[in-house]
Amino acid sequence: MASSDVSDPSVVARLDSAFNPRTIAVVGDKRAMGYMWLRCMSTFGGKLYSVQVDPNEISGIEELGVPNYKSLLEVPDEIDYVVCAVPRQVSPRIIADCIEKKVGAVALFTSGFAETETPECIAAQEQITQMARDAGLLLIGPNCMGIYNRRLGVRHSGDQEAGDAGNVAFISQSGTHCINFSLFGAVHGIKCSKTVSYGNAVVLDAPDYIEYFAQDPETEVIALYIEGVKDGPRFLRSLKAAASRKPVVVWKGGVTTAGSRAVYSHTASLAAEPAVWEGAMQQAGVVQTQSLDETVDAVKALVYAGRPAGTRMGLIAMTGGQSVVITDAFEREGLEVPLLTAKSYEKLAAFFNIIGGSYRNPLDAGGTIGMGFVPANLEKLFEILEEDENVDAVAMEVGASFIARRLRDNPAMLQQMVDTLAGHKSRSAKPFIAIAHPGHVEDVMSEMRRKLLERGVATFTSFQAAAKAMARAIRYWRFRDGGE
Amino acid sequence: MASSDVSDPSVVARLDSAFNPRTIAVVGDKRAMGYMWLRCMSTFGGKLYSVQVDPNEISGIEELGVPNYKSLLEVPDEIDYVVCAVPRQVSPRIIADCIEKKVGAVALFTSGFAETETPECIAAQEQITQMARDAGLLLIGPNCMGIYNRRLGVRHSGDQEAGDAGNVAFISQSGTHCINFSLFGAVHGIKCSKTVSYGNAVVLDAPDYIEYFAQDPETEVIALYIEGVKDGPRFLRSLKAAASRKPVVVWKGGVTTAGSRAVYSHTASLAAEPAVWEGAMQQAGVVQTQSLDETVDAVKALVYAGRPAGTRMGLIAMTGGQSVVITDAFEREGLEVPLLTAKSYEKLAAFFNIIGGSYRNPLDAGGTIGMGFVPANLEKLFEILEEDENVDAVAMEVGASFIARRLRDNPAMLQQMVDTLAGHKSRSAKPFIAIAHPGHVEDVMSEMRRKLLERGVATFTSFQAAAKAMARAIRYWRFRDGGE
Repeated sequence: MASSDVSDPSVVARLDSAFNPRTIAVVGDKRAMGYMWLRCMSTFGGKLYSVQVDPNEISGIEELGVPNYKSLLEVPDEIDYVVCAVPRQVSPRIIADCIEKKVGAVALFTSGFAETETPECIAAQEQITQMARDAGLLLIGPNCMGIYNRRLGVRHSGDQEAGDAGNVAFISQSGTHCINFSLFGAVHGIKCSKTVSYGNAVVLDAPDYIEYFAQDPETEVIALYIEGVKDGPRFLRSLKAAASRKPVVVWKGGVTTAGSRAVYSHTASLAAEPAVWEGAMQQAGVVQTQSLDETVDAVKALVYAGRPAGTRMGLIAMTGGQSVVITDAFEREGLEVPLLTAKSYEKLAAFFNIIGGSYRNPLDAGGTIGMGFVPANLEKLFEILEEDENVDAVAMEVGASFIARRLRDNPAMLQQMVDTLAGHKSRSAKPFIAIAHPGHVEDVMSEMRRKLLERGVATFTSFQAAAKAMARAIRYWRFRDGGE
Repeated sequence: MASSDVSDPSVVARLDSAFNPRTIAVVGDKRAMGYMWLRCMSTFGGKLYSVQVDPNEISGIEELGVPNYKSLLEVPDEIDYVVCAVPRQVSPRIIADCIEKKVGAVALFTSGFAETETPECIAAQEQITQMARDAGLLLIGPNCMGIYNRRLGVRHSGDQEAGDAGNVAFISQSGTHCINFSLFGAVHGIKCSKTVSYGNAVVLDAPDYIEYFAQDPETEVIALYIEGVKDGPRFLRSLKAAASRKPVVVWKGGVTTAGSRAVYSHTASLAAEPAVWEGAMQQAGVVQTQSLDETVDAVKALVYAGRPAGTRMGLIAMTGGQSVVITDAFEREGLEVPLLTAKSYEKLAAFFNIIGGSYRNPLDAGGTIGMGFVPANLEKLFEILEEDENVDAVAMEVGASFIARRLRDNPAMLQQMVDTLAGHKSRSAKPFIAIAHPGHVEDVMSEMRRKLLERGVATFTSFQAAAKAMARAIRYWRFRDGGE
């Protein structure tokens, strides 16, 4: 736990039952909040209990079909995970009950502690911290949303998906970003294994969660939103160890002067000097991002794109203007857009005589769409890039204005393009990504993006976003191979 | 024109009739292309003529209700603007006819000139260039889409809007980017006055169009996509003169090594050294961008946000986590997020006692939404920031996950938020912008964005995009005031 400099291996084992609970108790849910916690847990297949003393609330809870008890101690079951939503003043009593009940872990949704910067609230935080530490209680928060387990339907937002497994873990000091990552991520093809919003981190801190997800077999990529750490050396050790096993993406909040002031108001964390942080992250071998969009994009590239042998991109655009811009985007991020082999140019010369356009690299594939989409023409381009030994990975634009227009009017053509790209991806040994800019037909391009992601093709909304994500993924794999 | 070092003032006057034509002739439109040019011009209210010699094509043209002639010379009218889509081999004959007919200007859609890098095609380009220069013919292109005039319905894409006036001009060496700017811009609240795609720029070059739009009363902001210039000093002079009158945004394509190779394949332009270009643009006082999205965002800020007195931002977010991230985004772009005045904090302390949350700056406005949206609460925050003398401009988040969910379920609340924000914007003396991240309800947030833009509120899709655009707009205004 955060207070000690040495990791406690039993914490990982105990966290496992909290992250995969068979029993959950929600303490203090209220009608005024629409019984949000109990409703969130409606997708949970295990045993769900409510703890509430107010008779005015109990009837509403029972209407939801959830058995209610006046105290945690009365619940006739072991409890793996508790969500506590009582007012701050009541929280020490609930913490005491959690300790006596020996619950697996408790997430304190309750806020109004150190982040409010008043002596009374800071003292309250110290009180519950000391209680939990003394008893070895796994306390998540306070001022947090706790755990989301997609597979088990343990949620902290009614909009979160449930029932099937995921492979990306998100660790977040912010409840908003935790929920946003899972929701926004879901429409970008990212399925969360588990996430945790951990707020003020008084007992369990980021390293505990990092260590847990590093060994979690369900989790293939770990992403974090972090505002500050209490034990820097331990944080770095845990990041480094995790990044040597699976990709880790770190989005740091509060990197600017006013940003770190906002951090303190938010989770009472002290922010590190940007340059110090940057250096430490590089040393740890993690991917660094600056926003939710960049985090989702980096994870998307890591989950879907595959591991390229190098940084040389083969690019396909739909017009001359887009060829220039896609090239700039990838080179600006430090990737190469090389000339192809003489053999490829021979094959391309014959082919482009028929379809027209430029083919140095990028290839202008506008002609493969021509007056109607001919999958075989596009497949021919894929085949040439696949065989070209100067190319490590391929990125393709799928939505310039004139194509977008046709896709809008012709859903069959959209499906045909999806099938062609997904077919190539499944056959190709090289990473392949697509770019579907929303353009003026946002709904069509969003559908295109989702369909491609469903078929395993990482699809981005801009050249810049694709290039940044690809470059970050490649840097990660190179670091892991000892190349940097 | 490009060949001389001194601008010819008559070119601007003559371009005016081409950009505002009363008569248009389309030469060489074909059934195989779906008669795209004649169909694009179906929104044109002036006189439209077709020139086509192939009897197999003429019947289709006449079915469109467009009178056809075998030659430009036979058209019984003066022609202000010609679009020429004939094969390259035929183009010298059409150029000769344009000269003899004394047309206002001709846009050569025809491609396959110097950009193909073959001796024959380069020679063909030289031939038509010489013909046009000798005769003083205003030749747009070749390898271009020509003119779009929204008000008059002169279009180069059937998806472009027509009928009402716009205020943003776009000058583009790429046809794709020219169309994309108008279409993508339109769903982001940008109405084009006129645009021009000018391709290989053999006669008329960027400076001619810049000079024209600098004096065009309909155009309030000028944006450019440019790959390379032939006469650097004249280009810079024209940019500088234009930027001293109205905002100019320059998106440069081909800034990287492979990017400049792609530029050559595209429009046969030679790219400048990035550092040289960058310095020249700074000297000219223009806004620089790197992509279509950044260009649209910068224009959006310039058109809608208003001119702030300084760089100090008052920020409003919906949760603590978003407060941190919005602050980072604006400070990272060089804007300030200052503490407010003591007077503001007094007012805020009383108010936040009721609604809850943090209020250093950013203000956490989650409480103003509470269990239902109370416009008066949000108006109170606006009022405090409006009166605070530490704040020059205000940016507000309108779509964290929990708000987005409510907006989705409650269209009346969405409308109420739009009304409240638009009401503030109309009363406020300070620039005000909004951020509506697409999140997991892209359609709802897109609707929010469009409604706000319709009411004059610049609305962006991410904090980063908003901050970048605002910083760029502020830098422009400061440069113009002699502040940099």
